[in-house]
Amino acid sequence: MKDKSDIGVIGLAVMGENLILNMASKGFTVSAFNRSTEKVERFVSSRAKDKTIKGCFSLEEFVNSLASPRKVMLMVKAGQAVDATIEQLIPLLDKGDIIIDGGNSQFEDSDRRTQYLSEKGLLYVGSGVSGGEEGALLGPSIMPGGSPDAWPAIKPIFQGISAKVNGDVPCCDWVGKGGAGHFVKMVHNGIEYGDMQLICEAYLLMRDMLGMSTDEMQQVFADWNQTELGSYLIEITADILAYKEDGQPLVEKILDTAGQKGTGKWTGVTALHLGTPLTLIGEAVFARCLSAIKEERVEASSKINGVTTVFNGDKAEFIAALKDALLASKMVSYAQGFALMKQASEDYDWDLNYGAIALMWRGGCIIRSVFLDDIKSAYDNNPEIKNLLMDDYFNKTVEAAQAGWRKVVAAAALSGISAPCLSSALSYFDGYRTENLPANLLQAQRDYFGAHTYERKDKARGEFFHTNWTGRGGDTASTTYDV
Amino acid sequence: MKDKSDIGVIGLAVMGENLILNMASKGFTVSAFNRSTEKVERFVSSRAKDKTIKGCFSLEEFVNSLASPRKVMLMVKAGQAVDATIEQLIPLLDKGDIIIDGGNSQFEDSDRRTQYLSEKGLLYVGSGVSGGEEGALLGPSIMPGGSPDAWPAIKPIFQGISAKVNGDVPCCDWVGKGGAGHFVKMVHNGIEYGDMQLICEAYLLMRDMLGMSTDEMQQVFADWNQTELGSYLIEITADILAYKEDGQPLVEKILDTAGQKGTGKWTGVTALHLGTPLTLIGEAVFARCLSAIKEERVEASSKINGVTTVFNGDKAEFIAALKDALLASKMVSYAQGFALMKQASEDYDWDLNYGAIALMWRGGCIIRSVFLDDIKSAYDNNPEIKNLLMDDYFNKTVEAAQAGWRKVVAAAALSGISAPCLSSALSYFDGYRTENLPANLLQAQRDYFGAHTYERKDKARGEFFHTNWTGRGGDTASTTYDV
Repeated sequence: MKDKSDIGVIGLAVMGENLILNMASKGFTVSAFNRSTEKVERFVSSRAKDKTIKGCFSLEEFVNSLASPRKVMLMVKAGQAVDATIEQLIPLLDKGDIIIDGGNSQFEDSDRRTQYLSEKGLLYVGSGVSGGEEGALLGPSIMPGGSPDAWPAIKPIFQGISAKVNGDVPCCDWVGKGGAGHFVKMVHNGIEYGDMQLICEAYLLMRDMLGMSTDEMQQVFADWNQTELGSYLIEITADILAYKEDGQPLVEKILDTAGQKGTGKWTGVTALHLGTPLTLIGEAVFARCLSAIKEERVEASSKINGVTTVFNGDKAEFIAALKDALLASKMVSYAQGFALMKQASEDYDWDLNYGAIALMWRGGCIIRSVFLDDIKSAYDNNPEIKNLLMDDYFNKTVEAAQAGWRKVVAAAALSGISAPCLSSALSYFDGYRTENLPANLLQAQRDYFGAHTYERKDKARGEFFHTNWTGRGGDTASTTYDV
Repeated sequence: MKDKSDIGVIGLAVMGENLILNMASKGFTVSAFNRSTEKVERFVSSRAKDKTIKGCFSLEEFVNSLASPRKVMLMVKAGQAVDATIEQLIPLLDKGDIIIDGGNSQFEDSDRRTQYLSEKGLLYVGSGVSGGEEGALLGPSIMPGGSPDAWPAIKPIFQGISAKVNGDVPCCDWVGKGGAGHFVKMVHNGIEYGDMQLICEAYLLMRDMLGMSTDEMQQVFADWNQTELGSYLIEITADILAYKEDGQPLVEKILDTAGQKGTGKWTGVTALHLGTPLTLIGEAVFARCLSAIKEERVEASSKINGVTTVFNGDKAEFIAALKDALLASKMVSYAQGFALMKQASEDYDWDLNYGAIALMWRGGCIIRSVFLDDIKSAYDNNPEIKNLLMDDYFNKTVEAAQAGWRKVVAAAALSGISAPCLSSALSYFDGYRTENLPANLLQAQRDYFGAHTYERKDKARGEFFHTNWTGRGGDTASTTYDV
């Protein structure tokens, strides 16, 4: 073991431990510290044993064990714990040392911390790390942002431990300054919410509309995994459906109340603030909330009169349509997610590289899929493309999938099966390609009751008009006070 | 004119002026002040002339002109201007005086200000005021919350100037402590976004799917206004469609790019934070965002291959279905909005009176409608009802409307017409009444990749299980670290 460690990690929960083991397995020497030092003791005497991992029992010992410039990675709970640990570290570190936050912090916090530590002569990196337990151990997707000067120092470690795709391309690259890394990770998580909910809706339609068995559905997902839908989430869905407990599918025993840790919610909140339609992820987050009120739904299911579902069509044909619906909706979700990143990049001056982001997500993380290569290609073809739906490949694919997609959404509506994300994606798609939306009427309403003014189709943009629609009202000025 | 004024208003934009004129018309003496005193000059020499309105040219003069306890109503821009004005007022006021904020402040700010001023011996009221320009002048809906001790002092004025319904019931009542008033106003505004977007979707379907003329559509909305849909927004929609400029419908000349002042957005953000599905309003906010990128939509409309709309059905029958779809979706939207208030009331200990809120919105404000009487009745029948969709009248009405609603949503999907709110409402309705949602699969996925654990249908709630789905993975503990 080297005298001084290449990097140190604070926080020995599952992600921290697995990242350390990953680093050690790639030849790096790693110092490990945890506030409750029993965890250090346990770790060094079990999983970390006989590896290039040095357990530390005080923050001073930990900091002194690191090679200069020191690289301290925090794998602690996002929020107050990060700020508290930073404050403890500041007096122990030297100028040019690097603090890295590998937790699920909000991008605004990473922005603030980068600025704050820069004033103290320290470099800060807020890095998204995706892939869960197994990804952290075997190769996660890593999305670092913050102080650009930190990147050369941490690059060998980060790209060394990250997942690799297409031969040896690391799923890790510099994202941008300030909070850019955590922003991109946040959008990743939001997209993950969307992907998971889309799969759930396909499952629900097969289960409750087509009346398929778990084994039959398992076969469909296994088949889909060999197509453009091929992805980690489709793959594990097939695994899950195949899993038996005492001969019975375990999935059927699991309670349908989804939990969440809030990152999807923040993607929705951010989209509302930036004014970018992110309807599919929004619906996915709310679908988890709705699932959580199980007792209320049970009560409602017996009290509210709905329709009875009967499917009389061709089952194989419908399953093919369902695949189209899933693919097209997924394309919409990613188009919305990338549009959100584009808006943020403009608003925060991040200069994001969208193709590189697609590659970072290509391996290691939960949303990894073959499909991300198509996104990379779209941005290779035109780095300035306004929306992925305008890319030729996307356009052609959605065109081919469209009939099936529409059929599925219509069938869900008629049959009383809830498919909020498949439906919402279609509404967005149709709205996005509509030259004349009905917002002219909405602007007229706002002008009618609030004198908010409107622009005209037959006049230049930026010229505002007000009509006294009723002939009543005072001589108060037109304004934009309300709503 | 009395020696001392009953109340004073700071801020002479349209809403402030009209509220003052309303107060004066009800026999109250009102002091008026504005930071730019030219506005005071202009107001007293024009609209305020010969009325019980006293123009003041300094804050000291204004404060000294008020009867004790002083009632100072701020009608200034929400945000920094409110805090700044409060700071200027504090040294001039005496213990027990009342500051009222009648702008569109965020409820968190009103909560904070109530607390802050209470520490200084002053009473604070954060009050929603709805109805736009005309409502402020003739009788708005007023939703006051804050320091409960302020209510007896302002009640005669507020209930005096508010709209009245069902004889002489004022559309104003005490909402609750802290930020409760502005919260309820925020939800009102969110519901307004939803109502407006629903009307726009009905208009779009008639215009682009049925190919109806503006005059034909005007007749439909005028007819609908005589039904359960009867409401201010339906009424003004008919007015708007009837409005001609040089013989042509003006609405067709208006640019379809909706503006927004952010209150709908905040309703969505709050719903995400409270974990309450508010899908329809969320979609309505995003629909405005989508309308705003007009140039991009124009480009997309020629580039993206969609379907060509052909309607071959019975037009009158479809219009009847559209009315059902609008009514059922509106019911879902209000059910979601009231569920959000219920969640907030529990989280913030507000003890909201939902029936009273329905009555406050019954007149004066933009969403006023006959329909709100049905909501009042639902809460009269059962003040503890979990969701309006469980009320017998709502349930029966949605049941009757359901076939038409489903038909419209399906037709929109098949025809390529974007109807995000009509569709989203149906997805929520079907999800809400579903005993077994597919979140069991989602929980299995989360447990598979993140060891997040799950509950079981065959075990008691609160018992969590983890499965090693792959047979791989270390001995790290189950956790809920991510996603």
